[in-house]
Amino acid sequence: MRLVTYTLGSSGARLGVLVDGLVVDVERFGASHGLASPSDMLSFIDNSVTLLPALRNCLDDANRRLPVGSAVPVEDVKLQAPIPRPRKNIFGIGLNYRAHVAESAKSLDTDKDLPKQPVVFSKPPTSVIGPGAAIQHNAKMTQQLDWEVELAVIIGKTATRIPVEKAMDHVFGYSVMIDVSARDNRRAGQWIFSKGMDTYAPFGPCIVTSDEIPDPHDLRLWLTKNGVTKQDSNTKYMIFDVPALIADISSGMTLEPGDIIATGTPEGVGAGMTPQEWLWPGDVVEAGVDGVGVIRHPVVAI
Amino acid sequence: MRLVTYTLGSSGARLGVLVDGLVVDVERFGASHGLASPSDMLSFIDNSVTLLPALRNCLDDANRRLPVGSAVPVEDVKLQAPIPRPRKNIFGIGLNYRAHVAESAKSLDTDKDLPKQPVVFSKPPTSVIGPGAAIQHNAKMTQQLDWEVELAVIIGKTATRIPVEKAMDHVFGYSVMIDVSARDNRRAGQWIFSKGMDTYAPFGPCIVTSDEIPDPHDLRLWLTKNGVTKQDSNTKYMIFDVPALIADISSGMTLEPGDIIATGTPEGVGAGMTPQEWLWPGDVVEAGVDGVGVIRHPVVAI
Repeated sequence: MRLVTYTLGSSGARLGVLVDGLVVDVERFGASHGLASPSDMLSFIDNSVTLLPALRNCLDDANRRLPVGSAVPVEDVKLQAPIPRPRKNIFGIGLNYRAHVAESAKSLDTDKDLPKQPVVFSKPPTSVIGPGAAIQHNAKMTQQLDWEVELAVIIGKTATRIPVEKAMDHVFGYSVMIDVSARDNRRAGQWIFSKGMDTYAPFGPCIVTSDEIPDPHDLRLWLTKNGVTKQDSNTKYMIFDVPALIADISSGMTLEPGDIIATGTPEGVGAGMTPQEWLWPGDVVEAGVDGVGVIRHPVVAI
Repeated sequence: MRLVTYTLGSSGARLGVLVDGLVVDVERFGASHGLASPSDMLSFIDNSVTLLPALRNCLDDANRRLPVGSAVPVEDVKLQAPIPRPRKNIFGIGLNYRAHVAESAKSLDTDKDLPKQPVVFSKPPTSVIGPGAAIQHNAKMTQQLDWEVELAVIIGKTATRIPVEKAMDHVFGYSVMIDVSARDNRRAGQWIFSKGMDTYAPFGPCIVTSDEIPDPHDLRLWLTKNGVTKQDSNTKYMIFDVPALIADISSGMTLEPGDIIATGTPEGVGAGMTPQEWLWPGDVVEAGVDGVGVIRHPVVAI
């Protein structure tokens, strides 16, 4: 299933599921089939062990007969970030693709050797924006605003010290995130400020549940700036794969439903180019992970 | 006012205010005086602009006549972390005391020059524990578990790009935090993993509202291990003071009610000693900021 958070007119954000070009409101549709579902993504993920198969059954049962008022064409809604307000900072992973480690070592201050353990940092909930929303460019803060397309993993269950071989059981689904980074705002090596500013985590367009992604390590991911391809790689080049990341983070930090792991970016960032390229107001960034979705964001001056 | 989050018997966590050795339940006491107050700290902070003066008026008005059932001796309750579950990661500040910059440069991999901008990192909500709770020592993860006493600043209002001269208006209050750090778990310089593991943010015992701390830059802060003093300094030695930190963080990242800034630790950490000292199961750490409070935590093996 492809789950979204959407608004329609002036209504608040609601949980929907995409079916044949329609956004089906999960709470309303569920109610018509005797399923008590919450109206927001995080509450749904909290109870996904029971809700996900139940919703799937209801959709199979409905067989395209959707009750009036429970579905609207996707063009008519405004998609929000699938989790508009994460309950903690997003876990970001740095230097997780070989060719990106190489380009970073040449252009930034990072090591040329492959990391021996995942390089974990964070982006606060206030950095999240939904599909189409503007990435802010504050010229007083940065002259080196960069892009990084990433596969985002959404955690489904609370757990600590998850064994690698059980890690995939903890994945609720996948999404796309751009890890926007102001390269000139790193602080003694710490990345939260340079990567955590408001609007620096474009996120969407949906969460694809894990059953629909048979292999998260064979997905093309790409990014264009003003229509020109800048990044085009595949998740198979990750250094630490999804189970390794889940096992590693949870070895010290409890993972919880709705937690987001942005799994790192491949080569092709602006800092690595000769000459270097950066994002400026007026630019448009489009990023996608095949089988998951595409997001498109303008850069605007503030 | 000294605000706490407490549990009594098997009841859920509730907001209280300390008055003469009693914990006064804010919601129940408020109700008896016509004040509709929430029962949890975060909701109270969200509306503190009106609730704080109103509660103060009620307490003055009550003049020690507290309705039955609204107060219990502080010895009878269990104090929790003042904010048991922050809404985002705690903002930690590294290398913010001169003498600590020097000891870190000698013993760790940090720079000997004073930082030109605040060094910001984060600790997830899952790292928070309340007064008295155990700091976990996982020998499989670390052999270098260290202590850092810090003044914690609690933000009261949502704001972005807060000018230095208005920053103090955004402080709701102060508390004590120990920034527990596994020195052998840093990742390519990123600190979230080494400082963000479960139980690595002991926090409490209360939030002292800002009106009771005339100068947050003249507070003694100290830490003992098994009764022996390890850290004993004063917040006047901060490199970036509280307004500077608020202005800096909010220059890129929106600050929100209930956000926590752990303002950095003075010299005297275990890594800086000759020979180095670490925390081990059986140790007891006690830390305090004069005028704010004291927390005491055992270290236990897991």
